[in-house]
Amino acid sequence: MNQQEVVATYLIETPHSLEHAAAVIAGEQSSGTFVSVPGETNELKERFSAQVRSIEALETVDAPSLPGSKAPRDNASRTRYRRARVVIAFPLHNFGPSIPALLATVAGNLYELQELSGCRLEDVELPPAFAQRYPGPGFGIEGTRRLANVHGRPLIGTIVKPSIGLSTESLSKLVGELARAGLDFIKDDELHADPLYAPFEERVRAATGEIERSADETGRKTMYAFNISGDVDHMLRAHDLVWKLGGTCVMVNVNSVGFAALAHVRRHCQLPIHGHRANFGAMARHPLLGIGFDAYQKICRLAGVDHLHVGGFNSKFYESNDEVGASIRACLTPMFGDYRAMPVLSSAQWAATALPIYAATRTIDVFHLAGGGIIAHPGGTAAGVRSMQQGWEAALAGTSLEDYAKTRPELAAAIEKFGGRA
Amino acid sequence: MNQQEVVATYLIETPHSLEHAAAVIAGEQSSGTFVSVPGETNELKERFSAQVRSIEALETVDAPSLPGSKAPRDNASRTRYRRARVVIAFPLHNFGPSIPALLATVAGNLYELQELSGCRLEDVELPPAFAQRYPGPGFGIEGTRRLANVHGRPLIGTIVKPSIGLSTESLSKLVGELARAGLDFIKDDELHADPLYAPFEERVRAATGEIERSADETGRKTMYAFNISGDVDHMLRAHDLVWKLGGTCVMVNVNSVGFAALAHVRRHCQLPIHGHRANFGAMARHPLLGIGFDAYQKICRLAGVDHLHVGGFNSKFYESNDEVGASIRACLTPMFGDYRAMPVLSSAQWAATALPIYAATRTIDVFHLAGGGIIAHPGGTAAGVRSMQQGWEAALAGTSLEDYAKTRPELAAAIEKFGGRA
Repeated sequence: MNQQEVVATYLIETPHSLEHAAAVIAGEQSSGTFVSVPGETNELKERFSAQVRSIEALETVDAPSLPGSKAPRDNASRTRYRRARVVIAFPLHNFGPSIPALLATVAGNLYELQELSGCRLEDVELPPAFAQRYPGPGFGIEGTRRLANVHGRPLIGTIVKPSIGLSTESLSKLVGELARAGLDFIKDDELHADPLYAPFEERVRAATGEIERSADETGRKTMYAFNISGDVDHMLRAHDLVWKLGGTCVMVNVNSVGFAALAHVRRHCQLPIHGHRANFGAMARHPLLGIGFDAYQKICRLAGVDHLHVGGFNSKFYESNDEVGASIRACLTPMFGDYRAMPVLSSAQWAATALPIYAATRTIDVFHLAGGGIIAHPGGTAAGVRSMQQGWEAALAGTSLEDYAKTRPELAAAIEKFGGRA
Repeated sequence: MNQQEVVATYLIETPHSLEHAAAVIAGEQSSGTFVSVPGETNELKERFSAQVRSIEALETVDAPSLPGSKAPRDNASRTRYRRARVVIAFPLHNFGPSIPALLATVAGNLYELQELSGCRLEDVELPPAFAQRYPGPGFGIEGTRRLANVHGRPLIGTIVKPSIGLSTESLSKLVGELARAGLDFIKDDELHADPLYAPFEERVRAATGEIERSADETGRKTMYAFNISGDVDHMLRAHDLVWKLGGTCVMVNVNSVGFAALAHVRRHCQLPIHGHRANFGAMARHPLLGIGFDAYQKICRLAGVDHLHVGGFNSKFYESNDEVGASIRACLTPMFGDYRAMPVLSSAQWAATALPIYAATRTIDVFHLAGGGIIAHPGGTAAGVRSMQQGWEAALAGTSLEDYAKTRPELAAAIEKFGGRA
């Protein structure tokens, strides 16, 4: 690809001709006003215009997916809506390698246009200038495995539950139990950052203390992702506290703080950034609106997340297993060398979920998080952790879960308790 | 309202009972996992649970608005989808007065739930603790009018066009012309921040120099909103440069940088923040998904915007005039005293647009921006500006545009050129 352009792929729907709709997008996002204005020379247009690279016609439908589109006047009584995949190239010199400027260009006002009854940014290809500006994941897969000391299998983790309401004392006790039960990873809930009833600093002191004590006993230090999401100054202070106390991970709700704040945290960060995507559905759940995960995860990785949530297989969320599998593969696709992020699976996960995940992705470079699926295991948390590991062992061995469970009581107990949900 | 809670209003759609769906939202966003876990006591639930305050049933439909919902099993063959307006109260002590924590709570994972086939955060009521944390607009309506020295009518402004491609020399010439033509306000395009072909610092030096020279001649200093959107450090430096050179406004693409970065800029800012909402459509255009403008603009104001884009009347964008009118009223509704932002109208605006705007809102506390509608006026830019002012004079006088134009050649010429578009 041309090293001096950004190439964006859109899924669009329009009551106009596909050529006209594509030209409107290219015009709106490079130079556009409703009448020609002085200074808008042909030479200028040529150097700075976005270029429509391809239009792949898809199906035509009778009703618009989104409100507010306007059909061409001569056509209003028998309007149909054409869908297409459109590829548009934007000259990099129009905006430079800045994530906020990129977003204004490849997304921005597009979604408002009357010429479109559907518009989704599906993917974006970025030139190397972005890698010169943004260092990307500071730890990535290798750095995370090294810090967590987990190799040859997924990181098995859990989320502190109940997400809301635990006192610092209860948290301390819980973290001690979880760490001693053999969990590789513990994380705060995305709802839980710096609440009034259990301030961040108290929580971090309590949890890191327990993790250190447990590590002294077991020889293994559990990684804990402390949710530092908040105002910019808070995040920097919160990171510094975690780092100072020996913590090994911080969590950021990417959409709650925004990409500029995430990239700013990354520049100051000495720890892996666990990227949560809460709120992603608001811009992604409608198939003809917003920003798709392929585009989204690239920007997250560029801005510096080391881990990125992708939903779960057989989860309580709306995405299909196929979509979640594609999201896992997307995070692991090389970009600018090793700007890869480790995908994080969660939501209604348990031991059995390992098999369809592995079948769909053939990777072990994931976090596999379970809440109830681990700590509500009939044999207790340690048995829950073992059952998750056994699920992955079965997946890697190509054995059925039931066969593998015959000689593994933890897995057998998990199947008995949670099997109705698989 | 209770001073210790946040109250959120949602429009939802669900294949479940409305009561069940509302309970799932409240549970997911305060404490939730698929099985009860140790530590989740009734006392804890009582103190920390979100409370469903009301459910107003609306229409029922045959098809889901969004993909990925799952109906209750006994009901799958004859599923219908119920819509409702649901009000839920979240205890403030669960998360504290933090915008990122607020977003994770009132929005966040909600949009992902299989129990919902539609979910839109329509409005949010915030307790005063948020005003103690966030200072809100630094200038607002009064401060902006004072700096721009415009009273008793809207601020008439334009956007630098072509948005992309002007050399610094051409920009300088254009700004000089615009300022001398009597414009109250000029802004960068949202696409235009710190491009490679015309770096931010050069542009600011060129434009502020012209504005100062023009002010020396005319006695009036045009306000220019320089688009500082970018990485956090860039924004602070860019703001400082504008301020040092005597500029009177900076612009931030709220969604491109995110709320945490916006709030951070606000804390350092000595100038009004012109808030652009590019990309808002990605989370708002579908009526049953995302975040509505009522909720959005409150968070923008809290984070510190002094001005906020609301689209335009008869614009090229998807919203109806009724929706844009409601957006104007929303920005002007008091919150925490005077956390009001001045609404900004743009997109295909011209002199005539003043009348429906004023009829719908009865306010003059707006920016009215026109691109072609001013600078493509047959009599030139100064005549274009006069025509816009005359449009508002007609609106305030309760006179028809045509009557008012009889003795105003600038307005008459605008009607002749742009009248087909009204």
